[in-house]
Amino acid sequence: MDEARSDDEANVRRGAMRRPNKPIGASPGLLVAPPDAKRTRVRVIGYGPDSVEEVVDARCEDVERMCGRHAVLWINVDGLADIDRLRRIGKQFAIHDLALEDVLASHHRAKWESFDDYDFLVLRMPEHVEGGALHTDQLSIFSGTNFVLTFQQHHGDCFDLVRERIRGGKGRIRGWGPRYLLYALLDAVVDSYYPELEAIGEQIEELEDDVLVDSKRVSHARIHEVRRDLLQLRRGVWPLREILHEIDRQPERASPLDLSPYFRDCYDHVVELIDLIETYRDLAAGLMEVYVSVVGNRMNEIMKVLTIIATIFIPLTFIAGVYGMNFDPAAGPWSMPELRSPLGYVICLAVMAISAIGMLIWFKRRGWLGRRET
Amino acid sequence: MDEARSDDEANVRRGAMRRPNKPIGASPGLLVAPPDAKRTRVRVIGYGPDSVEEVVDARCEDVERMCGRHAVLWINVDGLADIDRLRRIGKQFAIHDLALEDVLASHHRAKWESFDDYDFLVLRMPEHVEGGALHTDQLSIFSGTNFVLTFQQHHGDCFDLVRERIRGGKGRIRGWGPRYLLYALLDAVVDSYYPELEAIGEQIEELEDDVLVDSKRVSHARIHEVRRDLLQLRRGVWPLREILHEIDRQPERASPLDLSPYFRDCYDHVVELIDLIETYRDLAAGLMEVYVSVVGNRMNEIMKVLTIIATIFIPLTFIAGVYGMNFDPAAGPWSMPELRSPLGYVICLAVMAISAIGMLIWFKRRGWLGRRET
Amino acid sequence: MDEARSDDEANVRRGAMRRPNKPIGASPGLLVAPPDAKRTRVRVIGYGPDSVEEVVDARCEDVERMCGRHAVLWINVDGLADIDRLRRIGKQFAIHDLALEDVLASHHRAKWESFDDYDFLVLRMPEHVEGGALHTDQLSIFSGTNFVLTFQQHHGDCFDLVRERIRGGKGRIRGWGPRYLLYALLDAVVDSYYPELEAIGEQIEELEDDVLVDSKRVSHARIHEVRRDLLQLRRGVWPLREILHEIDRQPERASPLDLSPYFRDCYDHVVELIDLIETYRDLAAGLMEVYVSVVGNRMNEIMKVLTIIATIFIPLTFIAGVYGMNFDPAAGPWSMPELRSPLGYVICLAVMAISAIGMLIWFKRRGWLGRRET
Amino acid sequence: MDEARSDDEANVRRGAMRRPNKPIGASPGLLVAPPDAKRTRVRVIGYGPDSVEEVVDARCEDVERMCGRHAVLWINVDGLADIDRLRRIGKQFAIHDLALEDVLASHHRAKWESFDDYDFLVLRMPEHVEGGALHTDQLSIFSGTNFVLTFQQHHGDCFDLVRERIRGGKGRIRGWGPRYLLYALLDAVVDSYYPELEAIGEQIEELEDDVLVDSKRVSHARIHEVRRDLLQLRRGVWPLREILHEIDRQPERASPLDLSPYFRDCYDHVVELIDLIETYRDLAAGLMEVYVSVVGNRMNEIMKVLTIIATIFIPLTFIAGVYGMNFDPAAGPWSMPELRSPLGYVICLAVMAISAIGMLIWFKRRGWLGRRET
Amino acid sequence: MDEARSDDEANVRRGAMRRPNKPIGASPGLLVAPPDAKRTRVRVIGYGPDSVEEVVDARCEDVERMCGRHAVLWINVDGLADIDRLRRIGKQFAIHDLALEDVLASHHRAKWESFDDYDFLVLRMPEHVEGGALHTDQLSIFSGTNFVLTFQQHHGDCFDLVRERIRGGKGRIRGWGPRYLLYALLDAVVDSYYPELEAIGEQIEELEDDVLVDSKRVSHARIHEVRRDLLQLRRGVWPLREILHEIDRQPERASPLDLSPYFRDCYDHVVELIDLIETYRDLAAGLMEVYVSVVGNRMNEIMKVLTIIATIFIPLTFIAGVYGMNFDPAAGPWSMPELRSPLGYVICLAVMAISAIGMLIWFKRRGWLGRRET
Repeated sequence: MDEARSDDEANVRRGAMRRPNKPIGASPGLLVAPPDAKRTRVRVIGYGPDSVEEVVDARCEDVERMCGRHAVLWINVDGLADIDRLRRIGKQFAIHDLALEDVLASHHRAKWESFDDYDFLVLRMPEHVEGGALHTDQLSIFSGTNFVLTFQQHHGDCFDLVRERIRGGKGRIRGWGPRYLLYALLDAVVDSYYPELEAIGEQIEELEDDVLVDSKRVSHARIHEVRRDLLQLRRGVWPLREILHEIDRQPERASPLDLSPYFRDCYDHVVELIDLIETYRDLAAGLMEVYVSVVGNRMNEIMKVLTIIATIFIPLTFIAGVYGMNFDPAAGPWSMPELRSPLGYVICLAVMAISAIGMLIWFKRRGWLGRRET
Repeated sequence: MDEARSDDEANVRRGAMRRPNKPIGASPGLLVAPPDAKRTRVRVIGYGPDSVEEVVDARCEDVERMCGRHAVLWINVDGLADIDRLRRIGKQFAIHDLALEDVLASHHRAKWESFDDYDFLVLRMPEHVEGGALHTDQLSIFSGTNFVLTFQQHHGDCFDLVRERIRGGKGRIRGWGPRYLLYALLDAVVDSYYPELEAIGEQIEELEDDVLVDSKRVSHARIHEVRRDLLQLRRGVWPLREILHEIDRQPERASPLDLSPYFRDCYDHVVELIDLIETYRDLAAGLMEVYVSVVGNRMNEIMKVLTIIATIFIPLTFIAGVYGMNFDPAAGPWSMPELRSPLGYVICLAVMAISAIGMLIWFKRRGWLGRRET
Repeated sequence: MDEARSDDEANVRRGAMRRPNKPIGASPGLLVAPPDAKRTRVRVIGYGPDSVEEVVDARCEDVERMCGRHAVLWINVDGLADIDRLRRIGKQFAIHDLALEDVLASHHRAKWESFDDYDFLVLRMPEHVEGGALHTDQLSIFSGTNFVLTFQQHHGDCFDLVRERIRGGKGRIRGWGPRYLLYALLDAVVDSYYPELEAIGEQIEELEDDVLVDSKRVSHARIHEVRRDLLQLRRGVWPLREILHEIDRQPERASPLDLSPYFRDCYDHVVELIDLIETYRDLAAGLMEVYVSVVGNRMNEIMKVLTIIATIFIPLTFIAGVYGMNFDPAAGPWSMPELRSPLGYVICLAVMAISAIGMLIWFKRRGWLGRRET
Repeated sequence: MDEARSDDEANVRRGAMRRPNKPIGASPGLLVAPPDAKRTRVRVIGYGPDSVEEVVDARCEDVERMCGRHAVLWINVDGLADIDRLRRIGKQFAIHDLALEDVLASHHRAKWESFDDYDFLVLRMPEHVEGGALHTDQLSIFSGTNFVLTFQQHHGDCFDLVRERIRGGKGRIRGWGPRYLLYALLDAVVDSYYPELEAIGEQIEELEDDVLVDSKRVSHARIHEVRRDLLQLRRGVWPLREILHEIDRQPERASPLDLSPYFRDCYDHVVELIDLIETYRDLAAGLMEVYVSVVGNRMNEIMKVLTIIATIFIPLTFIAGVYGMNFDPAAGPWSMPELRSPLGYVICLAVMAISAIGMLIWFKRRGWLGRRET
Repeated sequence: MDEARSDDEANVRRGAMRRPNKPIGASPGLLVAPPDAKRTRVRVIGYGPDSVEEVVDARCEDVERMCGRHAVLWINVDGLADIDRLRRIGKQFAIHDLALEDVLASHHRAKWESFDDYDFLVLRMPEHVEGGALHTDQLSIFSGTNFVLTFQQHHGDCFDLVRERIRGGKGRIRGWGPRYLLYALLDAVVDSYYPELEAIGEQIEELEDDVLVDSKRVSHARIHEVRRDLLQLRRGVWPLREILHEIDRQPERASPLDLSPYFRDCYDHVVELIDLIETYRDLAAGLMEVYVSVVGNRMNEIMKVLTIIATIFIPLTFIAGVYGMNFDPAAGPWSMPELRSPLGYVICLAVMAISAIGMLIWFKRRGWLGRRET
């Protein structure tokens, strides 16, 4: 994190955890657009076993016109800026005020709620912003007897292949009704967590290699980043487990088909994601510990160099200092007689050499010389 | 925390966790005002679908007079100094002694209890004192068939908009009875935690940037403060989950209306608050670890500077010391002949330069020169 | 903990966690007095709605005489040295052998057991010994249809006010039978934990201020002490939750009165105590982390001083050393000509000054000069 | 981890945690071979109480031919490269599409699912790759009324002895049907974890001895490796507990024999494995803490050596420096008269010796001299 | 752990966590003696209310002869080397193969299993080997309607007093049947954990005193040892809770007597043991933290000494160095005129003294002088 993060990224992160947009104590059901709401764009796909009709950038009239003409109507709303349009769509499908308020909150924990005529799900999809930071986008789904209504905060999602399958008419998707569409969307959301976890797994492996081989390339910033991303994903994935458990226990709405194995398969994937996230969290925590101990070891190395150099030379310098004293050899027989001895200098140097070698041997014995293997 | 905290702040904090005011073994139901109790001020609002009456600073007679004349009577008591008045109000609404004792305790964990004629709730509202420190104020609510009785320790609350809605008569609040008022108060309390968490989220982000970019601006004091605030909020929010769960399971008192979606919505918000608090706690704990490792790295940097300087100059100083010795070159051919050599000084300086350059190269190879990137 | 703790204190602490006094494999129900048992003293209070009789230091005959003459008989035994007397009292009230053995164990975890004719409770009361250390004293209660039998290891308890209330005859205590007395005792035990927690709360606050303002006044010993005390209290309080839950679910023995709100109130207090203890444990753990990082920072400060001084003076000393060398300027033009230059000394000093100032500027830039703000 | 890990090993590790091979949003039941899939090889063993027939490297026709001719048919598929063959086998035994997709996923958490005609199990077997690193191989088992179908990612397994028992016809295996074979396979998988844990146990013991006796032989890399291996095993073993619990509760399929004690025995072994893994995790975490504190102690030792040497010699060098000053003794009576004193030198040396000895005594008193016992 | 642990100890420890002795995939119920099995010795005690017969070192014939002649037959087998004899005894009492296999496994987690004719328990008894290390020995108990069959790995147990009670015929043991004997054995096993925990408690207290008073006597080795012992005991005690819970819920076999209070008492003891173990684990973990911070503080002290000495003397040595330079005072008026000044030397010394005193005052102000109180 050498550079200050971009403003956009900071906004997104902050947005991911913001309080409701309404003032404290205001009426429930009051709709207020989030401050950074994107332009609203509606895309409608109506389809049945034999027909398919798609309107990109649909107006409210299009939605009303198509309603009832297809076995399943999938209305996808990208961007939440146009409150009036949202309210009109909400009214058309008899959505509860409080549910619509939750759609706008942008910060919601994933959840599942059953209303009389439809199920309401809030999910979180992983998403990358320009700066590369990971955050989760809120996806709200209303699933009724003949419609699926989805709201997304940002443009762009992971449903392109689902749309393709509807258009192509291959597989069961065209004939199995709105509940199968709900399953297909859930499955796509769950699958979209895998690449994120794979990327994090690779980062952790890289960090592992770096921390053990060349610890200078690692920084606490990188490890901390990974842990924060894992916390984000965890917030998104954990509630899915409960949600899929609930959905599977619920009696089917308007569908004689048994989708249970499909939702159970989805549930298994979520359990596996949770398993991976917790394993990665453990690994990242262990990595931090290893890193701290590596930093300690590096300090030991530095101190050892200093100590070896200082310990060898300080006594030598002292000896040199002694014979640098200006006591007058002429003052008496005990006054530095060495200075006048013909071999004084050589003996002095020899003593210094012996002292230095002695120190080196002592260091050798303590194992301070030679590089550590790790 | 450069300055000693103000006395007022310390009092509040201490007050937030104090033992009951009564001596050990005293009769249950004995009412003792807390030592720092504020002046009691009663505000009554009576309202029905078509009428509203409000008395600020009401006397007990006002309360008795208004009783029964409105569909809902909301008596709000600020400050708990006037024990006699509390007891009189308690008697009027047939409040149990033990419940009234809990109102005065000022330290209670949030809870919900069902008595025959009313429900009793203790909640904790986040509040800032002058010093800026966060603490939680105790709010006790008695919710009966035609009244809502609230007690607050301190003046000032988050219910202004609720009062405004009652006065304005807009929305459902005037027509849906005391249970809807209870919901409105609960909702306001829950919402009042969001700004606190937002502030903490911003502090954590700031700390993250500081710890990684300019670690000197961070201090353990700041991180510890955040963690303590999170503990405070946690104490206030966790029990709400259980409380809202209980309320939703309870059969409605005197209300044919289905408030279940409202309480469930409130419950979802609490679950989300808990989720945020736990995420922030994880982040703050990770931050502390990062900070500790940053401190270790800073030490490494300091030691490296010392070691480089000392390791280069100590051998040089030793060489200078050797030629500073006063052995008499006249004493013999082995007695410091270098001193008289015409190039002795230059060679000596060259040896010194080579030694220094050699050390620098060695440090370069170890990667000790140049700043670390983080 | 500058001084070795007093022997008495050590005994108490050791006593608080000792194995049963009987040899392994001995018969169940074998009664052996604990080695440090105190002198046995029995105090009996018999009372009914209209009468009260109290015998301090009662003999067994007193107990037998008073039995059946009062609605409630409270026999309180202080000190467990006199095994024979305990056995005689146990036989009189038909106490099971295993229960009586538990009374003598002195180390028991709080528990609640229901026998045919009485309930058996083991509680732990916080207590301070002379040295000031905290430990918990074992209180065993047998609560039957017309008697309450309490055993304490040490003399002195927190029931003085309860006795006063019985003697005074005020409130419900005289008329509501032995189960209300049981509640009063439980309530007093629960309340007696509050001052301990308050004291610990104050210690933690003091430690927080000290660790952040003047870390030298803190020591790990003080933090560790607080944590150990919290562990002690925790051992005493946690089981109370389960116990009070069980008691409340139990059908009342011989009492037509509904004591449920009282036991529930007591239960709420225990939940709150647990909440406080866990919060304090979190705070103390955080404090330890902060302290460790403060110690690291202090080291940084010390190292910085050393590094600044050494880094400035070591090069200067080297320069001085160079011109202290005894090369003979007369030996040739390259042999220390500076020594004879009239400005040599001044230039040399100037170079030294520039070097020192350069170093200071460099340190300034790194931000090493000036005190850290925390 | 002195050397970069081999590519093969890295592939395996990465493979152990990879996303599904299909693109996000693709149809459920779409079969895509994993990128590193091994060549498919089918081995069929058909057996009954009296007969046994084995075909190594069987073609699909062999499978079809043998089907129905034996009481039990065990088809074992090694390597998942040949999608068409897998599909054909799947169709023959009426395997659900989603289950077959899970077989190919290679990353699945162990699980147990009950379909109408067969049970579906995913297990993970520990396996060593060339580099020596531990990973877990996915084993998928379909257990029907007269067949057991097993899929393995890699060649080589732990079932050789099971095959031997079938061929030899000893024990119950030939007569007790497919469910007993399922038990035998499960038992072998569970048993195959023991040698891995034994190896880890030995590594931990070795690390314990090393860390306490000769800490230089330990490195964080080795401890971290052990912890990562334990995480891997844990991922494989934990779900087995739930699976065996489920199997035991399930009514038997087509088998009048009571296999319950066998599955319960297997369950006990899994519980024991979990117990061991958690104990080892605790030990390894403790080891890391000990290692960090050992590193700290080593630093203390290094610093002590430096401090002792520097503290003794720096004052001595200063004294020598003083008498090396060139003040002219002839300048006046206060100008270094010591230099001319006949005993000046001797006294100077004596002072130095006394200073050094004083320092040594002081260090002795602080307990800095002498080696630490650990 | 100054010395390498003895081989015997290492064997025992390794044995405590070893894989089953059989190869992977072998038939269930195959009996293989553990490699370090001790010589088998059988001791039989038959008794009833009025009779008792004991055979030490019994042969199989003795067992068969005594069978049916006593109300209760207690066969105790020490050492598991003689597989044939074990098999014969197993056959006599109709023991299931898998259970007998578990007896030989030597590594089993404590468990309780109910077979048709008997209950099967595996327990772990704490035991000390010569080296002083703690480990747990496996005790397997089969408890039928008229026999109790116990298997121990090593000779020597904690049942001497139980045997004494049977021989003496005092108490209930002779008359209450095999289930009471089972209780007596369980009780003895549970009691045998107390001395171990007491010893650990004393070690922790000693470590606490040492770490705070004289930290040099502590070593991480000692703390780690305590933690490992606690892990061992924990492995042995935790499952007992579940086991005793199960036994108490089980209907009595062939015993009209109510042993419930006895098993409940035993259960309470186990809960208390768990409580103690967890408390000790918390204390030991806290101790490790304190120790790490003590090590950090000690480093601070060492660095402070070095810094004080170096900071005082380095500038002084520099001054001395300056006046040791050989610039020729005769070269000019700016060339070291101080050297010829009559007071130059004295002034120089004075400047040195002032510098040193200034430094000391500065250190005093920072609070670096004087010992730290802890």
